[in-house]
Amino acid sequence: MSKTFHVAIVGATGAVGLEIMQVLERRNFPISKLTLLASSRSLGRSLSFGDQKIVVRELNDSAFLGVDFALFSANGKISQKYAPIAREAGAIVIDNSSAFRMDLQVPLVIPEINGADAKQHQGIIANPNCTTAITLMGLYPLHCAFGVKRIFASSYQAVSGSGAQAIQELEQQVRSIGKGESVEKQVYPHQIAFNVLPHVDAFLDSGYTKEEMKMQNEGRRIMHLPQFRASVTCVRVPVYRAHSIAVSAEFEKSVSLDVARSVLMRAPGIKLVDDTVSNLYPLPLNVEGKDACEVGRLRLDCALDNGLAFWICGDQLLKGAALNAVQIAELLAH
Amino acid sequence: MSKTFHVAIVGATGAVGLEIMQVLERRNFPISKLTLLASSRSLGRSLSFGDQKIVVRELNDSAFLGVDFALFSANGKISQKYAPIAREAGAIVIDNSSAFRMDLQVPLVIPEINGADAKQHQGIIANPNCTTAITLMGLYPLHCAFGVKRIFASSYQAVSGSGAQAIQELEQQVRSIGKGESVEKQVYPHQIAFNVLPHVDAFLDSGYTKEEMKMQNEGRRIMHLPQFRASVTCVRVPVYRAHSIAVSAEFEKSVSLDVARSVLMRAPGIKLVDDTVSNLYPLPLNVEGKDACEVGRLRLDCALDNGLAFWICGDQLLKGAALNAVQIAELLAH
Repeated sequence: MSKTFHVAIVGATGAVGLEIMQVLERRNFPISKLTLLASSRSLGRSLSFGDQKIVVRELNDSAFLGVDFALFSANGKISQKYAPIAREAGAIVIDNSSAFRMDLQVPLVIPEINGADAKQHQGIIANPNCTTAITLMGLYPLHCAFGVKRIFASSYQAVSGSGAQAIQELEQQVRSIGKGESVEKQVYPHQIAFNVLPHVDAFLDSGYTKEEMKMQNEGRRIMHLPQFRASVTCVRVPVYRAHSIAVSAEFEKSVSLDVARSVLMRAPGIKLVDDTVSNLYPLPLNVEGKDACEVGRLRLDCALDNGLAFWICGDQLLKGAALNAVQIAELLAH
Repeated sequence: MSKTFHVAIVGATGAVGLEIMQVLERRNFPISKLTLLASSRSLGRSLSFGDQKIVVRELNDSAFLGVDFALFSANGKISQKYAPIAREAGAIVIDNSSAFRMDLQVPLVIPEINGADAKQHQGIIANPNCTTAITLMGLYPLHCAFGVKRIFASSYQAVSGSGAQAIQELEQQVRSIGKGESVEKQVYPHQIAFNVLPHVDAFLDSGYTKEEMKMQNEGRRIMHLPQFRASVTCVRVPVYRAHSIAVSAEFEKSVSLDVARSVLMRAPGIKLVDDTVSNLYPLPLNVEGKDACEVGRLRLDCALDNGLAFWICGDQLLKGAALNAVQIAELLAH
């Protein structure tokens, strides 16, 4: 008989938490028991998992008794407080927040890239930032072929990256504008409907946002590449789900388009969609709900000597969050 | 008595043509007569200009008799056919299409940058691409201070850049989605509502689009900088009006943020909006209908040694088209 596990989801009723449940079910993760934890607001709600109805329980110090894997998809403060408690109780924590990503004791893992790092865990493993994860899914295979030095990237990030409330905010703003009514803002400081906001996460003194620097900071750890440089502009766009990133990447070696294509066609978790003659290129709308990230618009970069430009789209609730977390659990379960 | 001019607008009923009429009126361009020309579809329509109603006339070989300035805002084929005819008739042509932009006999002009080039005209002057014009409005003052070598840029382009039909297409798609109906596509090959399309203009063999290469090709001519390199990804976004561009720029000299800020504060046609503490940065929604382009999110580029990253927004129907064309006419009228 193969082993089964007691899995807990922290933040089970959030956008990522709900997605984790679906991914666990769809991938037949070997679960003996599923515990759903959330803040007191969600207590008493029950969620479907397969043919079970599971009642959401309160996140507290004794919530992790007997848990094997605790998948955290709440905010950084919750992770900071409860991840050590879960680890003490014997669980392996896989954390979606940014709380532990820069902690050198905590592996930061994309299974297709540095899955081996997960095995070095000391009870907590961090899941990378969504935009970083999607970009690296396309960049890393190219790095293996050509050796990446630096990238220049701009993101087109969907509102679901800001949670369920942001999805409602975009819907409501579009409805209000349709009726000629004034627009209400709660999640974003400015109207997101029919607008784009060059502002994701908090601003740092350098003028970059935290989100923008995650590409370089997390990219260095995940690719084991301490000299990697990444200049990023992160932009929120009125798309419901799936992020897109435009990338110019500079490499050590000279780049061949044929090699780049064949490398990406073989890469796990990536689908090459690059037939511009037929107007085929990755679109955020087309990767909604898909596990694979789609990469296309491949071209030799005209402003770099050893450079390649590309465009990549990924469902940030899946590869950028829930799917990657479950993949990490799978690595350790097998 | 100061001189007045007979002005003709070719493509008067299009998105840019209508904008040109408003700009001429708002800036009190010295007009003795305004002739509105369009294809046979629009014949008989009459448009308001000040307190006049002007009937749209047919564009034909004799349409330019007595015209001083012919502002073309139709497609490239129309310009190729009729611009020489207008010039023969004695008009100075200011052409919004891409037909003559790379013709070395034709000055390509942004008045704030290379206004002097306009005086060298031989009857035709080209108006630059909208995304290029807006980007250069921010880049050129920085170039004067630091000497630009190359840029990496990604655009967030509004649907009005594809004309009035594209505005309707976005509106209709949003309405259809709101009602749960299927979406119709005519202007764009894919749904634009709640999506982003990495596809503006036709694809070249290199993998770049024509639109993407305009930044380098036109930038070289406008800035008199034959070595300038620009790697661009042009992306259509569900915004009605005003383009945004994220730029990483590399310079010859070392860059100071203070100098960059003071240079941009003094630059004509530019407004510095860069107070991230108060969540103030350029937004496409905020530059709608404004002559000035707004620049912000200034930061030392973390992947370049002498680099600056910035974000710029401009109304592409104004600085990217109608305003720039009228400014060129003003240069020559004075």
